[in-house]
Amino acid sequence: MSFDYQAAFTKALGAVHSEGRYRVFADLERVRGRFPAAVIHKDDGTTEEVTVWCSNDYLGMGQNEEVLDAMKAATDHVGAGAGGTRNIAGTTHYHVRLEEELASLHQKEAALLFTSGYIANEATLSTLAKLLPNCVILSDELNHASMIQGIKGGRCAKLIWRHNDVEHLEELLSALPVSQPKIVAFESVYSMDGDIAPIEEICRIAKKYGALTYLDEVHGVGLYGEHGGGVAERDGVLDMVDCIEGTLGKAIGVMGGYIAGSAELVDAVRSYASSFIFTTALSPVLVAGALKSVQLLKAGQDLRARHQDRAAKLKAALAEQGLPVMESESHIVPLMVGDPVHCKGISDRLLNDFGIYVQPINYPTVPKGTERLRFSPSPLHTDEHIAYLVHALDALWTECKLAREEQPAPQVVA
Amino acid sequence: MSFDYQAAFTKALGAVHSEGRYRVFADLERVRGRFPAAVIHKDDGTTEEVTVWCSNDYLGMGQNEEVLDAMKAATDHVGAGAGGTRNIAGTTHYHVRLEEELASLHQKEAALLFTSGYIANEATLSTLAKLLPNCVILSDELNHASMIQGIKGGRCAKLIWRHNDVEHLEELLSALPVSQPKIVAFESVYSMDGDIAPIEEICRIAKKYGALTYLDEVHGVGLYGEHGGGVAERDGVLDMVDCIEGTLGKAIGVMGGYIAGSAELVDAVRSYASSFIFTTALSPVLVAGALKSVQLLKAGQDLRARHQDRAAKLKAALAEQGLPVMESESHIVPLMVGDPVHCKGISDRLLNDFGIYVQPINYPTVPKGTERLRFSPSPLHTDEHIAYLVHALDALWTECKLAREEQPAPQVVA
Repeated sequence: MSFDYQAAFTKALGAVHSEGRYRVFADLERVRGRFPAAVIHKDDGTTEEVTVWCSNDYLGMGQNEEVLDAMKAATDHVGAGAGGTRNIAGTTHYHVRLEEELASLHQKEAALLFTSGYIANEATLSTLAKLLPNCVILSDELNHASMIQGIKGGRCAKLIWRHNDVEHLEELLSALPVSQPKIVAFESVYSMDGDIAPIEEICRIAKKYGALTYLDEVHGVGLYGEHGGGVAERDGVLDMVDCIEGTLGKAIGVMGGYIAGSAELVDAVRSYASSFIFTTALSPVLVAGALKSVQLLKAGQDLRARHQDRAAKLKAALAEQGLPVMESESHIVPLMVGDPVHCKGISDRLLNDFGIYVQPINYPTVPKGTERLRFSPSPLHTDEHIAYLVHALDALWTECKLAREEQPAPQVVA
Repeated sequence: MSFDYQAAFTKALGAVHSEGRYRVFADLERVRGRFPAAVIHKDDGTTEEVTVWCSNDYLGMGQNEEVLDAMKAATDHVGAGAGGTRNIAGTTHYHVRLEEELASLHQKEAALLFTSGYIANEATLSTLAKLLPNCVILSDELNHASMIQGIKGGRCAKLIWRHNDVEHLEELLSALPVSQPKIVAFESVYSMDGDIAPIEEICRIAKKYGALTYLDEVHGVGLYGEHGGGVAERDGVLDMVDCIEGTLGKAIGVMGGYIAGSAELVDAVRSYASSFIFTTALSPVLVAGALKSVQLLKAGQDLRARHQDRAAKLKAALAEQGLPVMESESHIVPLMVGDPVHCKGISDRLLNDFGIYVQPINYPTVPKGTERLRFSPSPLHTDEHIAYLVHALDALWTECKLAREEQPAPQVVA
């Protein structure tokens, strides 16, 4: 009897359901000019206004009037799509200018755009691995799925180092032949825990053993450094990173990804990467918006300062109620739940009873047992937004009898 | 001594240069409302107006006023980017509506958007291969790089059948165990030769041996069938295709990709595909534009008829001069050159001496020895555009002493 495909798909979906990690996408419309507000479309056909607490449009640049004007102007000027691959009619002057701007942002010779950050990682790591004979990639154990896919695609040797553990990295590097090409691949801000890599130390060790350094800054670009060049700019170590990978879809507020590095590295990836060569170029409308956004974020520190202030305020307010906020040096505020059903349940209650939208983060995005709510406060979340969120969480934590952290002892005022 | 990375990149680039296939991207700005005109930015800083003859915006929908208005309205309504993955704040009501529209276009239960057609192929084929135990994929030898990447990623058995050769396909299928899951993967219109697959026959054989059928319609969607549902719609065989893959970046004129199929197949891909799950959703601006474009192309046949008329006219005019136009049943008009240096040279001369932009198509996009110019006439290319192009090619063919086809004998008029 021939194979029953529908049954196989149903079985695969059953596994997802039974593990409590079947994803239902919230059907949203953000309300331009009123970030972080959005209208949610419910299954029964009704709509309701909610406050979004989990967007990666970290600074609200996706609603910035100048960015939107640049996109509308590009639409009027050249139209909707690129109309081809970068090589076949798809390179517009916007692409050329944005690549120059991004190279300059990271103080590199060249940059290259991709249709997403996912593809930037996949294409670059797999291509570098193929171009460097007998290459080995040393990958932080918490690296993003797109980096893992790139490493797999490169079909080279891979060594996993314990998360942000520079001693382990050195142990692995020191055991390799000096002449063997090596890539140390890691992220600056890890998006689910919100911790930050010791970039300088990692690069110093990598250089000591003659390795190329590859840094994913998708959660750092626009948010750290004097010009928004990321954590490597903040730490003053841009020159120690050989290849920086970034996104236009988070703090920049639009869509797309890129790398920046030496002219030769970038040109080699441009010339060999299948998923770069054989795909329609980014729409010039997106590129024009991203160009304006990068320029604005380069020029001013206000949004970055306010962003950090909001994150600190939310963390303090959660801790004050004994809610188990994870320690995080970054703008990302994870609140540990530790169970997929409770995680989904609290997210549902926040939405339905409080008009607060925050998606549950379950496996496979995070390891089982570390299910969490992940808040991303923006410069546009007010004190009132924060107070209301903490009030709602406090009520649900009590109702669901979830564990709290020990409260700090009350300060005695003399 | 530690490894010299720059030298390795330089060497890799040297190989591309020495094979005459180093790509220089033309820096273009299309002129909205005057398709197929564009302004080209030259290395010396000057600009010049050219006629584009190689865009995959086949119908000029990327310049359609209603499409552009829909994009600007979405920009005003919700802003620039989706702000997250589809699961985490990135699903907008535009995404939901476009997926419904695309499912309906292909008469399937469900559809799923991806950030590109490349990713749609890569994600879907690799995921299907992983979900179907002991799966074998039977792949047409000329399938696109993105399908090949998907098949590789699935790490399943692969059999290559000779291009559009249904007897070879049957031979391979008949040798496999009946109960083994099998996917027959192919394209409708092959973009470099412009030939069209015998979809009905392929599907009939696939079904006979219990195989799932996967059809890439990226060069068919919008262009064939009463509603622009592609060649499978034109041939009346939509129900024989289990999974249709399409793009929003060619005839639709915008950017992005999708699949359409049964609810279970689509939901399984949605739930398991890494490159779908872990990437920022398509910008709602693009989705709004694509939605309008699909609706317009569903409603009217005029553009499709004019498109076929222009392609036929160009083919006839080239053949009349004995220029080696490849036989092609589709809208794609390849002119064989057969040498990468001549191919690049003629392309350069067309651009510099005649203001005609057509990119040379060299290896690895086509096999070595079959280098070509690939023209894509649109409904907006006039008789004058065609006459001028043929005049220019005729002159260059003579000057470069390139081979011509035998001319048909002159008709004797009685």
